[in-house]
Amino acid sequence: MVPGFLTRAVELLLGRDGRGRPLHLKAAGGATAVLVVVMLLGSWAVIAAEHGARGANLTSYPKALWWSIETATTVGYGDFYPVTLWGRVVGAVVMVVGITTYGMVTAAIAAWFVGREQKRHQLAHRAHELCDETAHALHERFDRLERMVASRGEEDRN
Amino acid sequence: MVPGFLTRAVELLLGRDGRGRPLHLKAAGGATAVLVVVMLLGSWAVIAAEHGARGANLTSYPKALWWSIETATTVGYGDFYPVTLWGRVVGAVVMVVGITTYGMVTAAIAAWFVGREQKRHQLAHRAHELCDETAHALHERFDRLERMVASRGEEDRN
Amino acid sequence: MVPGFLTRAVELLLGRDGRGRPLHLKAAGGATAVLVVVMLLGSWAVIAAEHGARGANLTSYPKALWWSIETATTVGYGDFYPVTLWGRVVGAVVMVVGITTYGMVTAAIAAWFVGREQKRHQLAHRAHELCDETAHALHERFDRLERMVASRGEEDRN
Amino acid sequence: MVPGFLTRAVELLLGRDGRGRPLHLKAAGGATAVLVVVMLLGSWAVIAAEHGARGANLTSYPKALWWSIETATTVGYGDFYPVTLWGRVVGAVVMVVGITTYGMVTAAIAAWFVGREQKRHQLAHRAHELCDETAHALHERFDRLERMVASRGEEDRN
Repeated sequence: MVPGFLTRAVELLLGRDGRGRPLHLKAAGGATAVLVVVMLLGSWAVIAAEHGARGANLTSYPKALWWSIETATTVGYGDFYPVTLWGRVVGAVVMVVGITTYGMVTAAIAAWFVGREQKRHQLAHRAHELCDETAHALHERFDRLERMVASRGEEDRN
Repeated sequence: MVPGFLTRAVELLLGRDGRGRPLHLKAAGGATAVLVVVMLLGSWAVIAAEHGARGANLTSYPKALWWSIETATTVGYGDFYPVTLWGRVVGAVVMVVGITTYGMVTAAIAAWFVGREQKRHQLAHRAHELCDETAHALHERFDRLERMVASRGEEDRN
Repeated sequence: MVPGFLTRAVELLLGRDGRGRPLHLKAAGGATAVLVVVMLLGSWAVIAAEHGARGANLTSYPKALWWSIETATTVGYGDFYPVTLWGRVVGAVVMVVGITTYGMVTAAIAAWFVGREQKRHQLAHRAHELCDETAHALHERFDRLERMVASRGEEDRN
Repeated sequence: MVPGFLTRAVELLLGRDGRGRPLHLKAAGGATAVLVVVMLLGSWAVIAAEHGARGANLTSYPKALWWSIETATTVGYGDFYPVTLWGRVVGAVVMVVGITTYGMVTAAIAAWFVGREQKRHQLAHRAHELCDETAHALHERFDRLERMVASRGEEDRN
């Protein structure tokens, strides 16, 4: 159920009118912006959650920011990690937003490549040209036939 | 062999009739649902497998759930990991289901972007319009030719 | 340079005749098979490379197999890792083959989704139907015009 | 804003004329080349940044190169990681370039698969053939009609 809803939500937020920049650029850009905000807020939230916990290693904002970068990119060295329930909830959000953003960027690049490839083989353009050619030839046949019928009419009259 | 079989299995499960929601939304949604179930069951299974093993660190359900999240997203901090054969089998299943789900979601977003891009350039629509135009022009030529032949007939009769 | 060469190599290996199963299924299946072989051989090679090294932790085949799984899926808990030059070369190969396979599977799913979506909107089918309709209407106009010309001939003869 | 700019920048760099190799091969090859350079330079930069820091473990070029490989592939065992601000900045660059390259390669494979699939179903080709057939049939009708009109003219003359 969720994907259908998300699709509509994203289209509503980013405009579904088909004008302006294509959807995939807007979606990838929007997801990247959301990821940056989630990483900045998540770094702050994880410190608040971990504060005073036994064995906590996320103790300062610069460390937490580095942690959020290695979490969002799924590198996860293990030099920093949350140890409390809420710290792990924040971590899970950063992970999921990170890989979703990355998936959106990959998908946007794929859509861009596929679009370029189709333009290159000029699918639409070729069909256009072909139909024009056929139509032109048929119109010429009509011109010739009409001249034939008309000249026969003149022959009769003489 | 497997991919072809999987393709058919997924189409059978999710309906191949082409009605309703597009396949990629259903597949991405279904994979996400399967992943959640695998993570919930895997967390329980890994504790059962690791129970009593030397050096085991996956000792409670909340820890195991956190482990399954960082495993499915491929972050893998290394704060928790299975040490027994069966624990590692469970881990491998969670990893493979995780990255496959993520691949499906990325592919679904790509299919959505590509579809939107094609609608935007209105490939099908343009071809439709073009053919209609050509057909209309040719029918008009027929009307004119028929009038010519008919009028010649009347001329003859007079 | 490499991608073009690889493209051709894969097409040559898997057949570029367009018959049988589509390329993306063959490529994803082939890459998965290659990955399994690389993981099985890599597990053996990394033990040979690490044998007797100071601080080596990859000391048995089952451990090495588990390591190759978490390496190929890019989870990398850090419970096992190579410490020698050749062990790391093997690790790099497993990583690169792993993510390339995963990329191929994701791309194959995307191609499958895109193809289904296009079949669903029946781009080709619709164009087919439309052309058939137009052609049929034009043939009917010819029938009618021929009957007109023929009947005029009979009128003249009488 | 950034994605649109990047799109244009990559197209400018790699040529947007539509001749030569398709864009997705050039982009994937170019990104791979950039990644290799970033990894080689990043390994050197991270050692310079970490030099003399307390708890630094990236102390030699071979170690740093291995670290850059496991960072770019997002494996991240945690056997090596930067501990200084600038070392982490270098690490973040390697991560981001690594996953972007990987996304580009995945997207390029997807574009290749989609293109092959479309060629296989011969969308453009089939439309071409169909139109040719229709046009040929209509021309034959014209030939027949012209012969009818012409023979009627000769009948009249006799």
